[in-house]
Amino acid sequence: MRSQYPSDYNSFAWVYNQHWGQYSQKFLPAIQDLLMRPLPDDARILDLCCGTGQLTRSLSGLGYRVTGLDGSAEMLRFARQNAPGVDLIHAPAQRFHLPPAFHGALSAFDSLNHILDRQELSAAFANVYAALLPGGRFLFDLNMEEAYNEYWDGTNGIAEDDHAVIMQSTYDSRSRLGFADVTIFRRTSGIWRRSDLLLTQRCYLEADILDALDEAGFREVTTTPASRYTPAPGAEGRTFFLACKPDDAAA
Amino acid sequence: MRSQYPSDYNSFAWVYNQHWGQYSQKFLPAIQDLLMRPLPDDARILDLCCGTGQLTRSLSGLGYRVTGLDGSAEMLRFARQNAPGVDLIHAPAQRFHLPPAFHGALSAFDSLNHILDRQELSAAFANVYAALLPGGRFLFDLNMEEAYNEYWDGTNGIAEDDHAVIMQSTYDSRSRLGFADVTIFRRTSGIWRRSDLLLTQRCYLEADILDALDEAGFREVTTTPASRYTPAPGAEGRTFFLACKPDDAAA
Repeated sequence: MRSQYPSDYNSFAWVYNQHWGQYSQKFLPAIQDLLMRPLPDDARILDLCCGTGQLTRSLSGLGYRVTGLDGSAEMLRFARQNAPGVDLIHAPAQRFHLPPAFHGALSAFDSLNHILDRQELSAAFANVYAALLPGGRFLFDLNMEEAYNEYWDGTNGIAEDDHAVIMQSTYDSRSRLGFADVTIFRRTSGIWRRSDLLLTQRCYLEADILDALDEAGFREVTTTPASRYTPAPGAEGRTFFLACKPDDAAA
Repeated sequence: MRSQYPSDYNSFAWVYNQHWGQYSQKFLPAIQDLLMRPLPDDARILDLCCGTGQLTRSLSGLGYRVTGLDGSAEMLRFARQNAPGVDLIHAPAQRFHLPPAFHGALSAFDSLNHILDRQELSAAFANVYAALLPGGRFLFDLNMEEAYNEYWDGTNGIAEDDHAVIMQSTYDSRSRLGFADVTIFRRTSGIWRRSDLLLTQRCYLEADILDALDEAGFREVTTTPASRYTPAPGAEGRTFFLACKPDDAAA
């Protein structure tokens, strides 16, 4: 049972919307501080891997002109409900093309760790670069090795009246892959149904991320530990990367 | 949903037998070292709260004449399968009466933490005292406060092909009660069924345990941290208590 993007993300969408969609709100202070502060009040923002859209809605509510993009149609179905009126695009981060119209782009909550291949990560960075105006800024957070060692070896569970979730996580330090086996029970019309899916993340080296950003044309890259904004537990090993498209880049 | 002894333990028995029954084997070295060493090779042993009987079988296999006792009929149903030929008694630790025939008694794997009332703990100790020969020894392990602080605030889950378990634990330091909400899914004849139960433990103060042992007549009480036998994680806050019925006690 190996992850087949994006079908596993479609299966995950209902549960993600219930339990993790709101969690991205805790990144708002970091996003405002690191990404938004120098941008115009009505800046155009690309929310890359917007998932179920709770953060997308919050940014839209702050007055930004937001476009959400995600590879999972089912995630976007929830995003349409959670962020009504916001432009949403169905495409994976590795394969989308938008004209250079955005002041800022962000990808929150370790979304980009779900890209398992270094070349595909570079492709995603290049796509974001192309979509940014000259001088545009790109903020994303990634789980680094400390996060996998801290959080990706164990189990946890949720039991609600009409559904339950079990996550069993492992991290393989040789392949630098983290696996989360997710089992979901949902009761509909009095019948319990089970679904199983696998989410996989790659743990990138900071040097590889910086190289990939450089290759895509980004400059002035800075890193910030999430623990500066979010108290532990929960922030260990999460790093924000901020990268800029040069002012004099070809539009 | 509050625990109603022993019905919740009956509901728990199938899962306990699958996932925790074998775990008690890791207490064998401590039991042999602390309890068995001075006893005759064919000593009579009372396995108090024997549960699904895996440890009972091991002790029987070592040549001891073992009697298992448990308050849950369903736990004992598994014990009959796991420890065939061993004498088993259906009674709670707080309410049983056996003549003084045992060289040793033990209650492993924090069973006695499931007794929620200090007076009932004293009653269990008195019953064990009465069942021991003069000079008999009683070994049990309890979760102390460190264990509740370490392990009883979080969730974990198990997902197997035909069943799944979710445990959500909390510890209330004011009442000194630990609660484990257990949700079990089992598939039989292609249909998933869910059951929910609550297990409750009390965190006793060492001074209260020593007082209760003294009241029951026990002497020469010694305590040993489980970490002396079992590597962390898993042993934190677990303490073995060894207590002796005096040689000159009235038989």
